[in-house]
Amino acid sequence: MRQSTLFTKTRREAPKDEVSKNAQLLVRAGFVHKEMSGVYSFLPLGLRTLERIVNIIREEMNAIGGQEVLLTTLQDPGAWKKSGRWDDAVVDVWFKTKLKNGGELGLANTHEEALTALMVDHIASYKDLPRYVYQFQNKFRNETRAKSGIMRAREFIMKDLYSFNRDETEFKTFYEQAAAAYLNVFRRAGIGEKTYRTFASGGSFSKFSDEFQTVCDAGEDTIYIHDGKGVAINQEVYTDDVLAELGIAREELREAKAIEVGNIFPLGTKYSAALGLTFKTADGKDEPVWMGSYGIGPGRLMGTIVELLSDDKGLVWPAEVAPFRVHLVSLGRDGDAAARAAEDLYDALRNAGVEVLFDDRDLRAGEKFADADLIGIPTRIVVGRDSSEKGTFEVTDRATGSMELITREDILRTYHA
Amino acid sequence: MRQSTLFTKTRREAPKDEVSKNAQLLVRAGFVHKEMSGVYSFLPLGLRTLERIVNIIREEMNAIGGQEVLLTTLQDPGAWKKSGRWDDAVVDVWFKTKLKNGGELGLANTHEEALTALMVDHIASYKDLPRYVYQFQNKFRNETRAKSGIMRAREFIMKDLYSFNRDETEFKTFYEQAAAAYLNVFRRAGIGEKTYRTFASGGSFSKFSDEFQTVCDAGEDTIYIHDGKGVAINQEVYTDDVLAELGIAREELREAKAIEVGNIFPLGTKYSAALGLTFKTADGKDEPVWMGSYGIGPGRLMGTIVELLSDDKGLVWPAEVAPFRVHLVSLGRDGDAAARAAEDLYDALRNAGVEVLFDDRDLRAGEKFADADLIGIPTRIVVGRDSSEKGTFEVTDRATGSMELITREDILRTYHA
Repeated sequence: MRQSTLFTKTRREAPKDEVSKNAQLLVRAGFVHKEMSGVYSFLPLGLRTLERIVNIIREEMNAIGGQEVLLTTLQDPGAWKKSGRWDDAVVDVWFKTKLKNGGELGLANTHEEALTALMVDHIASYKDLPRYVYQFQNKFRNETRAKSGIMRAREFIMKDLYSFNRDETEFKTFYEQAAAAYLNVFRRAGIGEKTYRTFASGGSFSKFSDEFQTVCDAGEDTIYIHDGKGVAINQEVYTDDVLAELGIAREELREAKAIEVGNIFPLGTKYSAALGLTFKTADGKDEPVWMGSYGIGPGRLMGTIVELLSDDKGLVWPAEVAPFRVHLVSLGRDGDAAARAAEDLYDALRNAGVEVLFDDRDLRAGEKFADADLIGIPTRIVVGRDSSEKGTFEVTDRATGSMELITREDILRTYHA
Repeated sequence: MRQSTLFTKTRREAPKDEVSKNAQLLVRAGFVHKEMSGVYSFLPLGLRTLERIVNIIREEMNAIGGQEVLLTTLQDPGAWKKSGRWDDAVVDVWFKTKLKNGGELGLANTHEEALTALMVDHIASYKDLPRYVYQFQNKFRNETRAKSGIMRAREFIMKDLYSFNRDETEFKTFYEQAAAAYLNVFRRAGIGEKTYRTFASGGSFSKFSDEFQTVCDAGEDTIYIHDGKGVAINQEVYTDDVLAELGIAREELREAKAIEVGNIFPLGTKYSAALGLTFKTADGKDEPVWMGSYGIGPGRLMGTIVELLSDDKGLVWPAEVAPFRVHLVSLGRDGDAAARAAEDLYDALRNAGVEVLFDDRDLRAGEKFADADLIGIPTRIVVGRDSSEKGTFEVTDRATGSMELITREDILRTYHA
């Protein structure tokens, strides 16, 4: 894409109404626009990044047998009353609205009820199980505090997967597959080394649920990490009893602030029993389906990457989530030799299937470099006078700052789809 | 995809609470699930179809210079009060809700206000124009009547593009490019021959807007078609004055019911003036930006295809919007020669990049054929005893019902990515 046509502009100053690092940088770089506290629009660079993250998650969910659907924001109270979660005193983040011709509706803050009710039409026998269903869908939560940028929003995209199994054993096998898929997601998104599977509080059907916590000072949670085992314990279950059960001593653990980037949760038969989702076993008995839920917020994950990896010059995107793979910066002017060399390399990279942001703007080099640092695309290729005269291009890694002079042929060998 | 793992089931009976043909067939075939009147979830086959339609539109919007964003559902009243559209007496389809810590919010029914306010940060000079920005985003409309299935929903995905130009001339050039892109969309979606660019009422800045109307008995609109010119006139502007202005005589026109599948609308400076979206001209003057809006509802388009093309056996999808290109139906059992031939062809087609729904279920042939007719994938390939013995496969076109016996090699030559 030609940067001269990109409609967003960067800003030198951080917006005064943002306190979080992720929102400050994402607004400055033109990735998001704040509509109000906790409500952000995604602009072209931000949407591309979000879509990359969504695609990583989609691939990992498909790999464990997930089938994608798209449920609705508007929720009829019926199913929620059956599960006991319609009342604002029980769930305190509801946004509610009214139908013109009467009747209250809710804006979905999660989808256990809706999907369980839907599956009643499609599951009758043990032969219809197991099933794994997921979506990327907007969730709405009426948060009183929303100061963490895109990490805790009132409106946000969530990947939520729900598992439907015959029994607890089958459920547990899938649960571990999902946990492994989650670790794949965080590794591919560039935060794998800092992300721990974390014991957290469970519900009626399991002592624990599992969170995925990324160590970061901006986190709202406190966790205790066991480096040897590569796992952590959330403060909420950090008790002598739990430590004894897990066979872990306090001295082996280190405390850290962390961001919850995902969670997986055994639901047992809580929703299936409440909403009548049963199946006939091979013996002809009716039993409620065993369920689990599995959430990742792609926006929160994007915000976490910013909090963790950005530096004082701006954003730093890992290759697999970056809005473009290469930022090609032309220092040429008015069709001179450098400008022609840049156009030529832009065409060659695009023909090789590389996603390129091409800074073809009529600006000083310093402004272009500052914008490139702020936007944070992994690889910057600068085309200057040397490029046309000596055939070499300055290639800089955004994360490390390391620079090399590389020929056109080596660039095309290195970067391809 | 193996049909044995697809979680949705088909139904023989039309749901009693649906009066529209599109909802009846889409529910029966397992493409959508009705949450409440006018609110539908998309199941795997339905979501795949919707995504195909979205991708056609995305490609056509990108081709005319569109840049994709994602705006929000939650709307602060501020910008809407400036444009005069916050009041329920002015816009009668609002869903409204409340922030927990005070303040009313709206659920977006359109996005002129939000995007115009956003663009103030990014447009300052004539050098920043023109700009074309679009999104695929949920819209919410508090309809009192919602009986047309996915064609008139209370919650629905909309592609809305907005144009930002320096002056009326530049705007009009783009407006015609957008009209041509819209005709491409409807042609690729398989309803081009029945879809007419239609004169409709304009606003303050233009006598006319343009609708795209698809001739169909299920339509809510009445249009008058001029076959010679390939255009139509909406009943709302079907007056002697307008006919005289267009140089068309009543006798040249035929009346038809039609579905509005898209519209493009000159906005002039209505929103830019109200919201302060101005730019400096080359002469240093401040002028409001010229705008237009361009809408297509992918869900309504999907519903229109169903209304127009389906038959008494079920859905009929054009190739470019079908959830899969090929429906491979195995008549084999328990690993017999036909079952092995089907597995082999499934692998070969997938390796060739073809999207295949593979009916590997343990069901009678009649049930499989009825499901295949109901689901409506363009090409059905049946693998029976002859396939393993003589090497021929029965290939049937869903739309015409024509059948041919084709060899494996010819199938792979015909169907590839």
